Amino acid sequence: MAVSNKGLILKEYPKGLPNADKHFELVPRTIDIKNLNLGENEIVVKNIYLSLDPYVRFTLREPEPEYVSVDTLLEKRVSIGQVIIGVGVSEVVKTNNPNFKVGDLVYGPVGWEEYSHIKSDFAAIFSPINKESLKDIPLSYYASLLKMGGLTPYASLISIGKPKKGETIYVSAAASAIGLLVGQIAKIKGLKVVGSAGSDEKVDYLLNELKFDAAFNYKKTDLNKALSEYCPNGIDIYYENVGGQTLETVLNHCNQFSRIVVCGMISQYNLPFNEKYGVKNLEIIFLRSITMQGFIVSQYLGTDIQNEFEKDFTEWIKAGKIVYREKVIDGIENIAEGFVNLFDGRNIGRTIVKVSDY
Amino acid sequence: MAVSNKGLILKEYPKGLPNADKHFELVPRTIDIKNLNLGENEIVVKNIYLSLDPYVRFTLREPEPEYVSVDTLLEKRVSIGQVIIGVGVSEVVKTNNPNFKVGDLVYGPVGWEEYSHIKSDFAAIFSPINKESLKDIPLSYYASLLKMGGLTPYASLISIGKPKKGETIYVSAAASAIGLLVGQIAKIKGLKVVGSAGSDEKVDYLLNELKFDAAFNYKKTDLNKALSEYCPNGIDIYYENVGGQTLETVLNHCNQFSRIVVCGMISQYNLPFNEKYGVKNLEIIFLRSITMQGFIVSQYLGTDIQNEFEKDFTEWIKAGKIVYREKVIDGIENIAEGFVNLFDGRNIGRTIVKVSDY
Repeated sequence: MAVSNKGLILKEYPKGLPNADKHFELVPRTIDIKNLNLGENEIVVKNIYLSLDPYVRFTLREPEPEYVSVDTLLEKRVSIGQVIIGVGVSEVVKTNNPNFKVGDLVYGPVGWEEYSHIKSDFAAIFSPINKESLKDIPLSYYASLLKMGGLTPYASLISIGKPKKGETIYVSAAASAIGLLVGQIAKIKGLKVVGSAGSDEKVDYLLNELKFDAAFNYKKTDLNKALSEYCPNGIDIYYENVGGQTLETVLNHCNQFSRIVVCGMISQYNLPFNEKYGVKNLEIIFLRSITMQGFIVSQYLGTDIQNEFEKDFTEWIKAGKIVYREKVIDGIENIAEGFVNLFDGRNIGRTIVKVSDY
Repeated sequence: MAVSNKGLILKEYPKGLPNADKHFELVPRTIDIKNLNLGENEIVVKNIYLSLDPYVRFTLREPEPEYVSVDTLLEKRVSIGQVIIGVGVSEVVKTNNPNFKVGDLVYGPVGWEEYSHIKSDFAAIFSPINKESLKDIPLSYYASLLKMGGLTPYASLISIGKPKKGETIYVSAAASAIGLLVGQIAKIKGLKVVGSAGSDEKVDYLLNELKFDAAFNYKKTDLNKALSEYCPNGIDIYYENVGGQTLETVLNHCNQFSRIVVCGMISQYNLPFNEKYGVKNLEIIFLRSITMQGFIVSQYLGTDIQNEFEKDFTEWIKAGKIVYREKVIDGIENIAEGFVNLFDGRNIGRTIVKVSDY
């Protein structure tokens, strides 16, 4: 017997900002789980919580030989007519894989759909969720905070930023899902944390909820003056989410041996090459012995730092040391709108879609 | 009794390229060594070989609050009327420092003059030269190759570039004193080495003397096409000496997890800000998880990598594995001209000034 398996497909490659109606379509489909033949190591999962992550935007790109990022398993390009791929929490409903049994809760890459038929290569990177832990921690946290959504800021800040007590960190896009965790981890590590965001509501949140040492609305403030005022001893770590002219200005404030963790350059992606901002003061990287480093979260999977992350974050969450804002949207019907809203600049924190009850 | 102590002083801050007559003056001075009173830990040295290094250009800058590099001991700004400071090989002729006796050969920061009165802070970073080693190695090599001139390419390439056998490295300004050593170290480490330089003579040298896998004259070649041809598997390490548009083009050829060792950005230093080249594709640093890192050679002094460098280089030089081109200029009278010629693009290798016999 077939059940509903609505899924969101890519209708057209977005140029610039994605639009829910123009670029996506929720397709009514069905899946006959009982009669589905599974290949070796394949599983079928019922999706519960899907995490809406900005990186998914990169998977929606036309083939562009000059600019391709590497097609890792998680960031594989989606073609027209294919279901969008993200990550989330699911329940195993059928299995031909000895690592998973029916009823297991798992985390891994799934389609933005009600049920996903997981091939062996994807199944190999699924991880189990310990049901015991759900006494203390909401299941939705396993869709992002305790997985890639927390690992991304933790691993990049620790391994590239190398935070030392007493140093100053500046976080751009500080009210983003990544930024607000970077700031809190840095506070826990004893740094002076300065953040910027694009609305007064976000700045209030950074100052009053997250206890940043300083925060400002970049739309109302001269960045150069703000950094002179809030980072009088210079910047030791810049957590870079923005790029372009922001990077140029920040470089002028970076200290000798400072580190720039390149998590994104969101001001530049949606521009054609000739409209991108040219950064003119890169010689400062040489003059001040700066490290500027990009990363991909999958490079940390299975390493020591992932273990440290899980230990630290579980402890910090239970101890109330992490303030986390999660917006849960109900129903696969609303996933396209939830995704495009990631880019409208109003979001604070992580958006999760609840696809089914658990 | 006073002896001659001619010294080269800064007459005017160079804007752009330095000019021997306009910016420098060789001043006739004397020094009365016998009657000179030495403070604690001070020494007087007779300079033998002085190394002419491009970094000295940075010490000749006007105070510029927006752009200052850090004033390390070695790269301290020189004021008008002061003697230029560089590094070289000298003989101790008077000492009030228990670490040095008269007749010792030493390496350290000295003025561009016949004799230098070394204060205690500078004396603390002088190192002795083992006279035994002079059976196998010319004394002039201790002015640069076996000291900072070799440590710079070795330590930066190993610690930032992390070369792995079979990888591809592209070296810009490959016939410079640093570049030719970078290429040779990379060959020893089993990399495919591609270099560019600004004359056919230099390209011949790279290909025929140093056995680079590929080399091209950047003035006659489209860089993008050359990199496509010579680095068909992309670039794993870019040893950056040039900056500007070269960096932008190279970034398009950089592989996932590639490393950019920022040794200099010589195309950009002498330009006013609004004429500097704006690099538009830095998002590739994020998209391909690239590390771009500047350094200062003094960060490696006294570390394990300095010991490894001295061991490796001594062995490689004795075994003839390092081809080194050293131009020795005779006499302090010619030091200003030798220095400004570093920037005329015709030099291959290191220039040393012989100030006195040993």
